[in-house]
Amino acid sequence: MRIDLNADLGEGFGPWTMGDDAAMMDIITTANVACGFHAGDPVIMRNTVGVAREKGVRVGAHPGFSDLAGFGRRRISGISVNELEAIVAYQIGAMQSVATLAGHPITHVKTHGALGNMCADDDAWALGVARAIKAADPTLLFMIMPGTATERAADRTGLASLREIYADRTYDDSFNLTDRSKPGAVIHDAALATEHVLRMLNEGAIISTSGKRLDVGIDSICVHGDNPAAVVMARTLRSSLESQGVTVAAYEPS
Amino acid sequence: MRIDLNADLGEGFGPWTMGDDAAMMDIITTANVACGFHAGDPVIMRNTVGVAREKGVRVGAHPGFSDLAGFGRRRISGISVNELEAIVAYQIGAMQSVATLAGHPITHVKTHGALGNMCADDDAWALGVARAIKAADPTLLFMIMPGTATERAADRTGLASLREIYADRTYDDSFNLTDRSKPGAVIHDAALATEHVLRMLNEGAIISTSGKRLDVGIDSICVHGDNPAAVVMARTLRSSLESQGVTVAAYEPS
Amino acid sequence: MRIDLNADLGEGFGPWTMGDDAAMMDIITTANVACGFHAGDPVIMRNTVGVAREKGVRVGAHPGFSDLAGFGRRRISGISVNELEAIVAYQIGAMQSVATLAGHPITHVKTHGALGNMCADDDAWALGVARAIKAADPTLLFMIMPGTATERAADRTGLASLREIYADRTYDDSFNLTDRSKPGAVIHDAALATEHVLRMLNEGAIISTSGKRLDVGIDSICVHGDNPAAVVMARTLRSSLESQGVTVAAYEPS
Amino acid sequence: MRIDLNADLGEGFGPWTMGDDAAMMDIITTANVACGFHAGDPVIMRNTVGVAREKGVRVGAHPGFSDLAGFGRRRISGISVNELEAIVAYQIGAMQSVATLAGHPITHVKTHGALGNMCADDDAWALGVARAIKAADPTLLFMIMPGTATERAADRTGLASLREIYADRTYDDSFNLTDRSKPGAVIHDAALATEHVLRMLNEGAIISTSGKRLDVGIDSICVHGDNPAAVVMARTLRSSLESQGVTVAAYEPS
Repeated sequence: MRIDLNADLGEGFGPWTMGDDAAMMDIITTANVACGFHAGDPVIMRNTVGVAREKGVRVGAHPGFSDLAGFGRRRISGISVNELEAIVAYQIGAMQSVATLAGHPITHVKTHGALGNMCADDDAWALGVARAIKAADPTLLFMIMPGTATERAADRTGLASLREIYADRTYDDSFNLTDRSKPGAVIHDAALATEHVLRMLNEGAIISTSGKRLDVGIDSICVHGDNPAAVVMARTLRSSLESQGVTVAAYEPS
Repeated sequence: MRIDLNADLGEGFGPWTMGDDAAMMDIITTANVACGFHAGDPVIMRNTVGVAREKGVRVGAHPGFSDLAGFGRRRISGISVNELEAIVAYQIGAMQSVATLAGHPITHVKTHGALGNMCADDDAWALGVARAIKAADPTLLFMIMPGTATERAADRTGLASLREIYADRTYDDSFNLTDRSKPGAVIHDAALATEHVLRMLNEGAIISTSGKRLDVGIDSICVHGDNPAAVVMARTLRSSLESQGVTVAAYEPS
Repeated sequence: MRIDLNADLGEGFGPWTMGDDAAMMDIITTANVACGFHAGDPVIMRNTVGVAREKGVRVGAHPGFSDLAGFGRRRISGISVNELEAIVAYQIGAMQSVATLAGHPITHVKTHGALGNMCADDDAWALGVARAIKAADPTLLFMIMPGTATERAADRTGLASLREIYADRTYDDSFNLTDRSKPGAVIHDAALATEHVLRMLNEGAIISTSGKRLDVGIDSICVHGDNPAAVVMARTLRSSLESQGVTVAAYEPS
Repeated sequence: MRIDLNADLGEGFGPWTMGDDAAMMDIITTANVACGFHAGDPVIMRNTVGVAREKGVRVGAHPGFSDLAGFGRRRISGISVNELEAIVAYQIGAMQSVATLAGHPITHVKTHGALGNMCADDDAWALGVARAIKAADPTLLFMIMPGTATERAADRTGLASLREIYADRTYDDSFNLTDRSKPGAVIHDAALATEHVLRMLNEGAIISTSGKRLDVGIDSICVHGDNPAAVVMARTLRSSLESQGVTVAAYEPS
């Protein structure tokens, strides 16, 4: 068995940093890099991609809403699909060009925060993102949440998808993450997270909190690195997976 | 004789507009489109490129400093060449992707305002911009001011250049525009501007305010459209050039 | 009969302008000045207040969401009341200080756009704004929409209120403006708007589109100046009111 | 002997933090709080002032250039004194209002970064800041660098000044800090910094790196807390001063 490990990196801005990107670069195989709207700036983008290149980590664009103060986590109303496409295409293009300047072109796109949540729920929005990706480069992978509108959008537009599950989050019956406000939504223990991930990999399915089996393809596991405990959990997860015979390696489209 | 006419368009932001882009699109053959840092946003970029496509006007990226309040006209100290490259690559990439989404890919890059002034004066900065252009797409033209650091940077990096002169500005002996604070720096009369342009085209040279002849290649004439008088002057210039037998058409690299 | 006329001014940013503030300053008696978050910058704020001072027009702070691209018209989720208070207090304080620098201190506060809509609907938000006003200066008037949460918040916190109605908008039975998507929501004819306003002033009530009479106090009429037609309508309204014997003058708290 | 200890706090933005403000609040007696232009946002401002109130630490406004990406450390050209006044008044007013909301009004103003450097060098700029302070509240103290344009501006405008020296920086003969690029500009050893400070306090003078004695009044010592070593140095300095019989307490205007 073989699996990719991804995380959101490059989430500083100007003089500010977030998380321990250096540590995470030794754990993950794919980095989603912020594009300047919710975090990241051209220098941080270039430096993050440069380190990824040295470490052999794949990079992708991680576009979000233009909202530094809210870190792209606040839903913004009144954005048309036409505007959404332009916002996303802008960020992907910016990332492509900076990544090429750093000698390490991008391979995929993943939406961030509230933008990601809105795309998972809304087919029109997910299709808008898919069209933006195609305009930027139709060979880019669309990193999607299996079973949601993002997966349908990849399929309908002919984009290759990179299907991810979350190591530290549980799922409801609709393929969405359990709302953070509910008990059990977040898994804080590395052993439990490893067990959770291995079960999904072995079953080829998400098992929802109600016990329902949701058949999905799984290409990558999303881990976090924005605090020291998260880094430890990610490192533990990787070594546990490897000790169970799982090969951790960047996703290769077939 | 054949010449390109270019102008800076797409210089609104959010709810705000600047100049009469619709009128200018019928006059010019090449538009330099703001990329979101000093003006422009993804929606305005997309719409501006869309109109240019309909009108058969070439489009290029017009990157500037991140300074909406100052419209990119204020010099900012302490930016390294490394940072400059990332800032410029970011904006070019963003523009490329949005322009492709609008069905009309970009053909060139021109620096804006204080960024442009700093690049005209400084070989290291001009080379930084040239490297950013090459990272984005080495076939893009670098729109440069002949005789300045930008022309040298294009030559040294092997970028094809698009050499522009200003219709409404005079030049000093160093190939730079006469400082705006000096009398005669700006030409306000359309007839004088036409005469000024025709002389430069016929001579294949800039004639500086001191009377010195500066041999230069000229591919394009920059006109403005940010106020009604400027639009009238641009329209008059075009018709005067055409009545003198000059063909106004987009620049075609040989 | 005596009535105040108010409008939102100072809505440019950096190099951009919006509307014909100079014309409006001769029509209105009270200006709500943008505070830099959705529009306005320190220089525009200072200049707008300076003109108001010369013309004898009262000025107030017009805080909005931090969203230049969306002009403060897009609802943003996930903002706590605690954060709201800080955002509003920040903008009021900034406006107070700049207005004092311009020699013409502010007299009131009115919320803008999506922030205003959210406050009209939500008592907790409206109370948050009222607390921010009191922190800045408890003698400031809270410009409110009668019958909504903003009026209740002014009453509960002991702030004096300045009750406004809209000249060019109709109302539903809940004291809110008719949704713009519905026919008849906006009044485009100056004669109809004048008749609409005079009826409300004479009745001391809003007459909703269903014909219901909603008793309200009315201190000010909001007019717009963001396009030439709006300026004409505002001018016509003022002269019509005056020809009907209504005195147009700044609101004086009793 | 009695001395105030000040530091720049509240220098995060949105999701990002900088330095260990909680630790510094137990060391210093006066905090200069960022106002949202180079760092800080309304929520961080409110929270920082709230902690200062609990700890009995005085707070002041710390205005800077509008440049989050550059943290206000980059000089920006082309800003008029008129614009400067508006920018500074805006930030002071915002801070006043938020601090009052937090129940702990501000006592002083200190300029940040490149804005501070430009004011120390330029009488017209320093006077502009002084006028902005007076517009906001003429009883606010102007925290100045003795011997520079800021001290002259306070004197000429009748503002009370709060004169600060730097614990970890040396001075040239013109009362300015030694340029960071020169050896010996920064003092990294806490014992040396304490000795440096005690000598200045005992002499009532700055001793420049050339050995020149520059007579100055000293009310406060500026320390830093933006990295763990800086916090340790600040704590060591305070305890060393106290062990030498110096009383560390907030500055009281006489």
